[in-house]
Amino acid sequence: MITILRLGHRIFRDQRITTHCALAGRALGADGMVYTGQKDRDTEDSVRKVAEQWGGKFSIRHSDSYKGEIDGFRGISVHLTVYGMPFQEKMAEIRRKKDIMLIVGGEKVPPDVYEKSDYNLAVTSQPHSEIASLALFLHEYFQGKELGKRFPSPRLKVVPQAKGKMVKKA
Amino acid sequence: MITILRLGHRIFRDQRITTHCALAGRALGADGMVYTGQKDRDTEDSVRKVAEQWGGKFSIRHSDSYKGEIDGFRGISVHLTVYGMPFQEKMAEIRRKKDIMLIVGGEKVPPDVYEKSDYNLAVTSQPHSEIASLALFLHEYFQGKELGKRFPSPRLKVVPQAKGKMVKKA
Repeated sequence: MITILRLGHRIFRDQRITTHCALAGRALGADGMVYTGQKDRDTEDSVRKVAEQWGGKFSIRHSDSYKGEIDGFRGISVHLTVYGMPFQEKMAEIRRKKDIMLIVGGEKVPPDVYEKSDYNLAVTSQPHSEIASLALFLHEYFQGKELGKRFPSPRLKVVPQAKGKMVKKA
Repeated sequence: MITILRLGHRIFRDQRITTHCALAGRALGADGMVYTGQKDRDTEDSVRKVAEQWGGKFSIRHSDSYKGEIDGFRGISVHLTVYGMPFQEKMAEIRRKKDIMLIVGGEKVPPDVYEKSDYNLAVTSQPHSEIASLALFLHEYFQGKELGKRFPSPRLKVVPQAKGKMVKKA
């Protein structure tokens, strides 16, 4: 199980970034997302709607406490941060673990997140995007197999095309 | 040279997504971004500021015409879209090309973009994020070497840490 913990969501500013984190997480093999900060029904609804339409199970829920989530988690916690060690150096070690909480920050990450996390890892030491970091982490974790992941019982399914669009309804 | 063409930017709605596309592109080896839609000095300034502070060259400019950009481009154009063929199947072919325009949509991609692009490729056939798609495309194109990319003459540089943060000033 891979769970994303998204910290410090703000409805006005983060809605699309948080949604992209959830959808990229889902598409690339994560099982769900927990988020802290402001509770946001619109973001939850849009993520649940995608999961219903496109198949598989992906959960999303709000939490009041990142500390509670990290402390209560029984697997290993991996905080993705520009300040961490290169993620590719720890990947072989992490890949042996089955239960992972992938922590991605909002604008200001509380200092104890660095302490509480089992790993603080960087996807390059350049400032960029938590969405890109999540995607590359999952891609390396699953070694590309996530690209062929099947999503059970979809209502909608893309039929890949060289030109144009085709979507099948179940 | 890898150039990102970001379509249909809207100042209010897309500012952070477009910025993440540019910064993830820069961090993962792209050389610049051209965007269409609304001209947005704030987004341009924030991307230029990151490039100045963190080193290397990364250009960003607005264009009035996606048609002009695609038609005038002398390399190959790759449109990343959920409706396209699996990107991993075409990667060996594309990797031989040196000049690539990576096209990423906004909400509504004009139909002729599918016609004009040399490739329409999907990073999974699931709806997720143009930022994640860009990141995975660049990672596979550069075969992971982009993770060690150096950015000349930075003012700021992260010194990777297992816990906490360290940034060096030049």
